[in-house]
Amino acid sequence: MTRPLDCSEPADAAAIALSVDRRQATPLGVQLVRQLREMILSGRMAAGSRLPSSRALAVDLGVSRATVVDAFDQLVSEGYLEGRHGAGMFVPSGIPGHAMAVGSRGVPDRQAARSSVQARPEPQRPFQVGAWDASLLPLANWTRRFARVWRVPSVELTGSQHPFGLRDLRLAIARHLEAWRAISVGAERIVVTSGTVDATELVVGAALPDGGAALVEDPGYPSLRHALQRQGVTIVPVPVDADGFDVAQLGSTAGARLAIVTPSRQFPLGATLPLARRLALLEWARRSDGFVVEDDFDSEYRYAGTPLPALTSLDRDGRTIYVGSFSKTLLPALRLGFVVLPERLVPAAERHLRRRGQTASLMMQPVLADFMASGDFATHIRRTRRIYARRLDALMAAGVELEGLLVLRPATSGMHLVADIGDALADRLDDRSVAAIARAAGVVVSPLADHFAGPPTRNSVLLGFAGFGEARIRTAIRTLARALRRAG
Amino acid sequence: MTRPLDCSEPADAAAIALSVDRRQATPLGVQLVRQLREMILSGRMAAGSRLPSSRALAVDLGVSRATVVDAFDQLVSEGYLEGRHGAGMFVPSGIPGHAMAVGSRGVPDRQAARSSVQARPEPQRPFQVGAWDASLLPLANWTRRFARVWRVPSVELTGSQHPFGLRDLRLAIARHLEAWRAISVGAERIVVTSGTVDATELVVGAALPDGGAALVEDPGYPSLRHALQRQGVTIVPVPVDADGFDVAQLGSTAGARLAIVTPSRQFPLGATLPLARRLALLEWARRSDGFVVEDDFDSEYRYAGTPLPALTSLDRDGRTIYVGSFSKTLLPALRLGFVVLPERLVPAAERHLRRRGQTASLMMQPVLADFMASGDFATHIRRTRRIYARRLDALMAAGVELEGLLVLRPATSGMHLVADIGDALADRLDDRSVAAIARAAGVVVSPLADHFAGPPTRNSVLLGFAGFGEARIRTAIRTLARALRRAG
Repeated sequence: MTRPLDCSEPADAAAIALSVDRRQATPLGVQLVRQLREMILSGRMAAGSRLPSSRALAVDLGVSRATVVDAFDQLVSEGYLEGRHGAGMFVPSGIPGHAMAVGSRGVPDRQAARSSVQARPEPQRPFQVGAWDASLLPLANWTRRFARVWRVPSVELTGSQHPFGLRDLRLAIARHLEAWRAISVGAERIVVTSGTVDATELVVGAALPDGGAALVEDPGYPSLRHALQRQGVTIVPVPVDADGFDVAQLGSTAGARLAIVTPSRQFPLGATLPLARRLALLEWARRSDGFVVEDDFDSEYRYAGTPLPALTSLDRDGRTIYVGSFSKTLLPALRLGFVVLPERLVPAAERHLRRRGQTASLMMQPVLADFMASGDFATHIRRTRRIYARRLDALMAAGVELEGLLVLRPATSGMHLVADIGDALADRLDDRSVAAIARAAGVVVSPLADHFAGPPTRNSVLLGFAGFGEARIRTAIRTLARALRRAG
Repeated sequence: MTRPLDCSEPADAAAIALSVDRRQATPLGVQLVRQLREMILSGRMAAGSRLPSSRALAVDLGVSRATVVDAFDQLVSEGYLEGRHGAGMFVPSGIPGHAMAVGSRGVPDRQAARSSVQARPEPQRPFQVGAWDASLLPLANWTRRFARVWRVPSVELTGSQHPFGLRDLRLAIARHLEAWRAISVGAERIVVTSGTVDATELVVGAALPDGGAALVEDPGYPSLRHALQRQGVTIVPVPVDADGFDVAQLGSTAGARLAIVTPSRQFPLGATLPLARRLALLEWARRSDGFVVEDDFDSEYRYAGTPLPALTSLDRDGRTIYVGSFSKTLLPALRLGFVVLPERLVPAAERHLRRRGQTASLMMQPVLADFMASGDFATHIRRTRRIYARRLDALMAAGVELEGLLVLRPATSGMHLVADIGDALADRLDDRSVAAIARAAGVVVSPLADHFAGPPTRNSVLLGFAGFGEARIRTAIRTLARALRRAG
């Protein structure tokens, strides 16, 4: 029972010495997580081992399939397992057992089972996508404004709030959109949100109250797909080509009434959607009595060339919904973003929000309104844009060390770039294995595979650069190159 | 076409001179809202008039039924219409046309259609349930702490956050629960939420991932019912008697695996759930492999007698989920609350939150953690408890002026009380009409009918007292008494 299992054929529960004890107080799922973790840490399940299917394991152990799926999911989130599309669960390849043992101190007990909850936050590591650099945030500016607006709050703050959010913030957002994105809109069409989840619920609540289908980019945001599915929306993935969302597919999408796109900079691949495609999307929305959702998540960060105005600025028929965020320009933990609605959706959005209630906190809304109205927000964006441009340059320059391992694709905008797995590795390693090797060396690269709705069509990883100083970027690239070369 | 319609028989669209014009740029729903608002303001539709059904109106006008339902909903939220259970839509009785005209300045145009979005916030009015008194908030204390924690943030704040929320805040909540509610729990089972919506999604995501049925108190929170239904949970309303949730109904609820209760103080009626019923609920949860959700929304505010410990403190089998909030002890706009999970639900909750993402802002979490750990939060609760007790006394004392109109029911806890419609009015007016008369006089009372899942079984209104000073309470009672006497 203790011989290493390194074959890629799945074993049954007995073969890998799993069992559960119903007399213990410990829940069955927790028992399962501990045993599997221990087997991986001890090397009894080697890298590349394939686990029995959740269905087979549930039958073998006499537990519900949900218990097994829960246990697998937890181990995936902890990095002990990885799912491969259509092929089941594997112990990630390329990670030596001891590397993982360091993370959990090799103690597969009650504490370890809860370690991720109890642990202190870890510093953000390069090249985590969406990481933010606290040293660049205007925190002293905010604490001054916070004291000013909240010490003796005005009736604007203490009165009954409209569910669309603080009026002053909506006015400041309107002015920002006019100046930066050529969108002319009154505050009455702007809704303050607590971020992507909230925005997606609002869009669906207002535009697809009875459910239906939505076109989403593939690859795209996994969290967007999850949020839509949770609300009963059917996902129709549309392939992304070199120019972004492939509008040629619009003909065969009968029934869909929502298309969610990232025209400024396709997430995650980076294409800017050409004007002809933007117009084709608007025409599709008009024809199908639907809406185009423009997710404009980091358009402020363009380092060369002139940005295209927002797709929303082309709309003459009230067919676009614009989704903006302060997660990239400021920090994700702020949990503030906004949605610009066409006038025809305002009543439905108000009804949705009055029924559901707000999730966006009021506390930072007047601070942000003040920060934007003073001009300091625009200054902050221009300043961080210069700094991020230098960080991108540093990453591209350091990238020569990755020759043959990763091919960094040049970018002129955004906060991350795409790197294809190079010839020295591509025949042996997929993006998830590369990510696992990097993680074991203390560097984060995000597998592109995680962003596909269907089977991945490209073997690449994402590297976020905006949150890390140039010296740290160079060091991390050196570490990454060493780890990949060893594995190659 | 311009004769007043004061009959209670519904007319057809032509009879009330409604029409829509498809050539106009204005959406059909907005046209409908404007025309109906104008007819009510001008007195062409008198108080008590019944509108055609949405179905009939949609057919008459050749628009979709959803357009009509949207228009009705907007007018209900603006106070121009009210729905009566099973009887359709009515112009609220007891409101003279001019009283409403003041609110919208009698301008039924494009501006008025959006007035609720564009308007500046109005001061909170007595006796709005859930109102908060800014003068009692420790705002200077918070601004000092905000500056301290955010000027040079620690790695606790700048590092990758656990989806359960800031660790320091979870530790402070654990200590608070131990001291105030006799609940012993480690921080690893506490999740910080952005409030009721977020908490409900988490509870369902963790405890009923595949949907199912939930027992809810009737009367109870309408927003809770909506939140559950939006997530595909079937609502099973359980009647509330003088002791709260009627556990005699537990036998006939086969299939339900969640019971959501307010044992400390039933919302909205105020009963404290006796120990025997608490034990019956726990036994039901054990037997049905389900969970009891204890919504403990304002238990800190008890003005007489000894509080019962939380239901959760009786739980030996990991069958309770405790939901707490800072909306009542501090302010709703903070959008921070928390959920205490049994250990067996921790992995599923973590998975739910990693997939869905956080909606709670991080910004105030360290401020609140610091405020709690310093002891200032406990001081704040004790101080506001003394003040609210005096406000409750002032309300009960002023209440004699309402003799025959409203019968205030004594309360020893909470932030609102229940008032039954008195003999002088009860034969002519229901709670919604009383609320409409009060609103026209500038006083807010909340109809109990809005809190029932089924037909209302009691003719009462709710009066929130915690958010308003004693002088204001006395003035508002005088105004209310005058308005009701005139209508009686």
